[in-house]
Amino acid sequence: MVLLGSTGSIGVNTLLVAKRFGIKVEVLVCGKNIALLNEQIQEYSPKVVVIADKADVPKVNHVCVRYGQEAILEAIEASQSGLVVNALVGFLGLRPTLKAIECGKRVALANKESLVAGGAFIDTSKIQPIDSEHFGLWYLLQDRPVSRMTITASGGAFRDWPLEKLAHATLADTQKHPNWSMGQKITIDSATMVNKMFELLEARWLFGEGKNGVTAFDAIIETKSLIHAMIDFKDGSTTAHFAHASMQLPIAYALDKKMDESILEHVNLLDVGSLEFRKIEKERYPVWEIKEELLKNPYLGVVINAANEAAIEKFIAKEIGFMDISKNIIHAFENFSDAVPANVDDVFTIDEEVRNFAR
Amino acid sequence: MVLLGSTGSIGVNTLLVAKRFGIKVEVLVCGKNIALLNEQIQEYSPKVVVIADKADVPKVNHVCVRYGQEAILEAIEASQSGLVVNALVGFLGLRPTLKAIECGKRVALANKESLVAGGAFIDTSKIQPIDSEHFGLWYLLQDRPVSRMTITASGGAFRDWPLEKLAHATLADTQKHPNWSMGQKITIDSATMVNKMFELLEARWLFGEGKNGVTAFDAIIETKSLIHAMIDFKDGSTTAHFAHASMQLPIAYALDKKMDESILEHVNLLDVGSLEFRKIEKERYPVWEIKEELLKNPYLGVVINAANEAAIEKFIAKEIGFMDISKNIIHAFENFSDAVPANVDDVFTIDEEVRNFAR
Repeated sequence: MVLLGSTGSIGVNTLLVAKRFGIKVEVLVCGKNIALLNEQIQEYSPKVVVIADKADVPKVNHVCVRYGQEAILEAIEASQSGLVVNALVGFLGLRPTLKAIECGKRVALANKESLVAGGAFIDTSKIQPIDSEHFGLWYLLQDRPVSRMTITASGGAFRDWPLEKLAHATLADTQKHPNWSMGQKITIDSATMVNKMFELLEARWLFGEGKNGVTAFDAIIETKSLIHAMIDFKDGSTTAHFAHASMQLPIAYALDKKMDESILEHVNLLDVGSLEFRKIEKERYPVWEIKEELLKNPYLGVVINAANEAAIEKFIAKEIGFMDISKNIIHAFENFSDAVPANVDDVFTIDEEVRNFAR
Repeated sequence: MVLLGSTGSIGVNTLLVAKRFGIKVEVLVCGKNIALLNEQIQEYSPKVVVIADKADVPKVNHVCVRYGQEAILEAIEASQSGLVVNALVGFLGLRPTLKAIECGKRVALANKESLVAGGAFIDTSKIQPIDSEHFGLWYLLQDRPVSRMTITASGGAFRDWPLEKLAHATLADTQKHPNWSMGQKITIDSATMVNKMFELLEARWLFGEGKNGVTAFDAIIETKSLIHAMIDFKDGSTTAHFAHASMQLPIAYALDKKMDESILEHVNLLDVGSLEFRKIEKERYPVWEIKEELLKNPYLGVVINAANEAAIEKFIAKEIGFMDISKNIIHAFENFSDAVPANVDDVFTIDEEVRNFAR
């Protein structure tokens, strides 16, 4: 397989599962964590390695090291593997997804921005989602009419904060996720609820077209993050997917569709004792205000994503406050409401325009 | 269809669903509620009616009225319908189930005692279960290996009683079910947890053999009775079936396997707010002591059922206390541990012996 983003938590877990299943690693792509990359090279013997920066090339213990975004696309094109695992973070993950599909490969997709920004131009039949929510929805699907798909949110770092304190939240505060440890950006996106809005958009592209044709998508807070997805079937039944928070389960299915091994311990509801469900309140998560509008116009995902990435840069640089992230996103959404991309190139153009506007 | 037990709550709901789906009612069988039966005759125009007692025959407004257990079997045999809905209560439901299968009919089964006592001699491929728990398990089954099936219990009328008060509980006390209204016997069985032990035995016969071959079955208390069934799949996923407590959903599927209509409103977890799970404690539900032993020897269901029916008669007659019901069942279970039926006739012989012993 080709693994994009090998040193992040999804990448590390993917390698563990690949090892267990005896899947060979042809290409490793990572950013700046060269120390971990060198360990991975030793253990998995990839044929090609791609990193972010030219300056780091001499530090990599491999005969075939490339660098930069173009090199990622070339490595995908040159690879023999039928599977690309895309665990890159951010908008730069879109082109590799498109390239992999263009080359006839299956994509195990953990890069959210691919579908959020480019969903309209991606053949989702080639995609197996790697995240708990979409994996859960996929797992629950049966040959029965669906009324609604619901994914769950943890509520992020500020779930229980007094509302009036939110404006003063710092970067360090955003990183105190109640249930698990993830990368910096996604933890901010969890606190703003942007992450869940992205996942609703992804669900819309994955399940809203074609034979499933689901028309209603929503999210609620389940505070312990043990339920990840629920489906309301037309008959009145609701089914839910429970699992411990580990990416190894969706990864295992993405690597091997006929998976029949034990990957995780089951959730023991007697140990859990209770579950709590909460509404996603617009006061705490202002982006929720545009959720319905966005789901009606999923092409505008590129706008939201670019505005979010730009706002997070400013927040990290302490140029804006935490609550301004949502304000900036809504502002861009209103300003670019006509920015409907007609093709993939438009997606990149609009992305650029929104970033310039946001900056 | 042939409907056995038309005036009970399952029977009444079955007629509502049959009307909606335009399914004709060929035979109505009921006990002593002749007033309701006469209404049903007027609305559904059955060809044949069977009641319990000869003395009630003149009160029934129908040209073809039979009475007694033998008449039920004859009516099944003579019927043209391919479907028998068996909503009889108690051990007397077993022979009609066997007769219906013998006559090549499908059985929508709400009579628990059929599988509890006679499960070993019933072709479960002909059975569609009508109760929330087994329907939920059936609904959740997918083509993936199962580790365990779990059904939920409400905990019954004494879920929150102080343990020391249980010995003095009256018949009236047993009827105060926390979540819904059912018949008298099943509400007692809910308070003792015998009902859930029966359902585990039924699950064992329905899903423990053949292609599913599930080997582990358990139950837990979910206090709001919104989750009815859960499956732990081998991979580490758990799926759960949520629905409002209405028998119309399993009935609809039993009457029409390709059901794709909206039958119930969905459970709204935001309105629900929270869910609570509790262990089934042996102190409160002493029959739970023999659960594992019984599941290992499911043939002994006939013993448990006969002992339970005899004990309930005594409890209603105020000859024994509430906690004695469980004691009597365990006593019979220990005494008849070698009573393995080799055929259906043995089931009836053992049933008789246990009742005599228990009395």
